[in-house]
Amino acid sequence: MRAVAGAAFYAPVDAELRELERRLLDVGRGAHPTFQAAVEHLFSSPGKLLRPTLVFLSARFGTRPDREVVLNLAESLELVHTASLVHDDIVDRADMRRNVPTVNAMWSDDAALIVGDYLFAKAYALAAVLPKPEVIAIVAQTVFALCDGELNEVTMERSLPTESAYLERIELKTASLYAACCQGAALLTDADPEHVAALGAFGTNLGLAFQITDDILDVAGDDRDFGKTVGRDLAEGMPTLPMIYAVMEQDGHGGELAHRIVATDKTEAEVRDLLAVIRRGGGVARARERALAFHDAAMKALDALPDRPEREALRDVADFVVSRVR
Amino acid sequence: MRAVAGAAFYAPVDAELRELERRLLDVGRGAHPTFQAAVEHLFSSPGKLLRPTLVFLSARFGTRPDREVVLNLAESLELVHTASLVHDDIVDRADMRRNVPTVNAMWSDDAALIVGDYLFAKAYALAAVLPKPEVIAIVAQTVFALCDGELNEVTMERSLPTESAYLERIELKTASLYAACCQGAALLTDADPEHVAALGAFGTNLGLAFQITDDILDVAGDDRDFGKTVGRDLAEGMPTLPMIYAVMEQDGHGGELAHRIVATDKTEAEVRDLLAVIRRGGGVARARERALAFHDAAMKALDALPDRPEREALRDVADFVVSRVR
Repeated sequence: MRAVAGAAFYAPVDAELRELERRLLDVGRGAHPTFQAAVEHLFSSPGKLLRPTLVFLSARFGTRPDREVVLNLAESLELVHTASLVHDDIVDRADMRRNVPTVNAMWSDDAALIVGDYLFAKAYALAAVLPKPEVIAIVAQTVFALCDGELNEVTMERSLPTESAYLERIELKTASLYAACCQGAALLTDADPEHVAALGAFGTNLGLAFQITDDILDVAGDDRDFGKTVGRDLAEGMPTLPMIYAVMEQDGHGGELAHRIVATDKTEAEVRDLLAVIRRGGGVARARERALAFHDAAMKALDALPDRPEREALRDVADFVVSRVR
Repeated sequence: MRAVAGAAFYAPVDAELRELERRLLDVGRGAHPTFQAAVEHLFSSPGKLLRPTLVFLSARFGTRPDREVVLNLAESLELVHTASLVHDDIVDRADMRRNVPTVNAMWSDDAALIVGDYLFAKAYALAAVLPKPEVIAIVAQTVFALCDGELNEVTMERSLPTESAYLERIELKTASLYAACCQGAALLTDADPEHVAALGAFGTNLGLAFQITDDILDVAGDDRDFGKTVGRDLAEGMPTLPMIYAVMEQDGHGGELAHRIVATDKTEAEVRDLLAVIRRGGGVARARERALAFHDAAMKALDALPDRPEREALRDVADFVVSRVR
C-alpha cells in the first residue's frame, strides 16, 4: 500500500487490495489510447484506497462472502469515485490532485469529460452484473447523491451556508459513497440486517468525519502545503465548517467575514490573511469537535458487530481519518 | 408526435411513444431543482424519437414481448443518447441544437457536465434492472462506443481522415446506438436469433445512412439554415464524407482544400466559400450514393423478418432517414 505505508488496517485485506490495483490498471484495456493512458495515469498512484478497504473489511461480516462479487463492487465504487474526481477537477479548474497533474491538465477539459464518462460507464457495467438488485440500486443512488452534491456546489449562491446545509452537502458528496462501500458490501454478502445497518451508519459517520477533517486541513494544515491542500477552499470561495463556525463566533458582526470568505477573486495575500483570521478564532477547534463527534458515532455503530480483527481494522480506519495531519 | 408530424411509421407504436414521453419528462422528479429544470427543457420538445421508435418496432418481432421492460430499454437508450448530446454540446461549444438552446448555454458548462452525468446514471439504473445480462451489456458497449467515437474527435489530428476512418467514427458515434435499439429490443423479447441478427444489421446500416445524410445536409442543405444545421461541420473543422470525397476528386491536388477544411479558425466568408467549392464538385453526389447503399443494405436486412406492418414501418423509417431535406 502506498500513501499510508504500513497502516495496520490494510493487513486483513491486503490480497484483495493487490488484486483490485491490478484490475484498476487494466480498466483501459482494448479502449481508446487516450483512455488507456488516462487510466494508467490515474491508477499508477492509486492513493489511499480507503473506500475499497472499507468494502473488503465490511464484506467480512457477511454470511456468504464471495470474493469475486465483492471485488466487482469495490472496483465499481472506486471507479465511481475516480470518475467524479475527474469531472470535479474540470469544474474546479484544478491542475493538481495529491501532487499529481489532473486529467484535464494533462490532456484537456474535453478529454477529461469523456474519460470521466468512460469511467462511470465501466463502473456501471461492473455494478450491473452484481447478483443483488438492491446493491445495484445503492451504486446508482450514490451517483445521484454525488451529482446532487456537485450541482449544489455549482449552483450555490454566493453566501455562507448554514451548518445544516453544509452537512447536507458533504453527506451527498462524500459520506454517501463511504456508506455505499460499507453497507453495499454487507448486503452483497448476506450479512445480518442489524450488521448491514451498523455498517451503513459507520460509513456515513466516517464519511462526515473524513470530509470535515479534510476541510479543517484546508484551513489549518501545514503552510508548506499552501496552494496545494491548504487554502484551496478559500481561494475558490468554497465555504466549509471551520469558516462557518468562525463567522458564527462573531455574533452579528460576521457579515463582512462571510462576504470575504465566499468571494472568488481573491489574491494570494487575501487568502493568507483570511486563513490567519480564521485560525485565530475558535472555529477550527469547534469543527474538530464536530469531526470527533462523527468519529465517535462511527465507533459506536461498530459495537453492533461481532468482535473480529476486521472490526478492529475498521476502528483503525476511523482513527486514521480524524488523525491525519495532511 | 412532433418533429415528423404524422409520419406513418409512428402509428403502430404510438401508445408506447406517448408513455415514453411522459416518463422522460418525469426523469428529474425528486432530484436537484437544476436537474429537474434541465430535464423539462430537454424533453418538452423531444425531437424525432427515432431511436425509441426503433426499439418499439423491433420489439414486435420478439416471441415474448413485455411492454414494461421494452419501455425501460427505450428510455435507457434515449437517456444515453440525450446524455451524450449534452456532453457533446459542451465539447463543441454549441449554443443551439434543433433551434433550442443547449444546456450549457442555458445554465453553464459546469451544470451541463453534471446534468449529463445524471442522465447517464438514470440510463444505467434503468438498464441494470433489465432481465437479460446480454442486453445490459449492449447498453454498456454502446456507451463505450460513444466515448471511443467522441475521444476520436477530441484527440483527432488536424488532417483529413480516410473514408474508412470516417466510417469507423460514425459507426461508433451514431450507428452503434441505432444497432443497440434494434438488436437490444429483439434480444430482450426473445426474438429468433436470425431476426436478432437481421435487426442488428438493419440498425447499423440505418445509423450509417442517417449520419452520412446528416453530414451531407450540413454541406448541401438549405442556405436558410446556415450557421444552424448548415456549415457547422466546416466551421468546426470537422471533416465529413462529402468533404473527403471532394478532396479525393482533386487527385494529387487536394492538399490545400483538405488543409482549409480542417482549419478551425474560419471566418463566415471562408465557410461559405468552402461550401461553394465542395458543392460544385461531385463529392456530395458520391456521399449520397454511399448513404443510399447503406439504406439499401438496411432494407435488405429486413427481408429476413416476417412480413408485418412493423416491418413496413421500419422500411418507412429507413426511407425517411435518407430523404430528409433538413
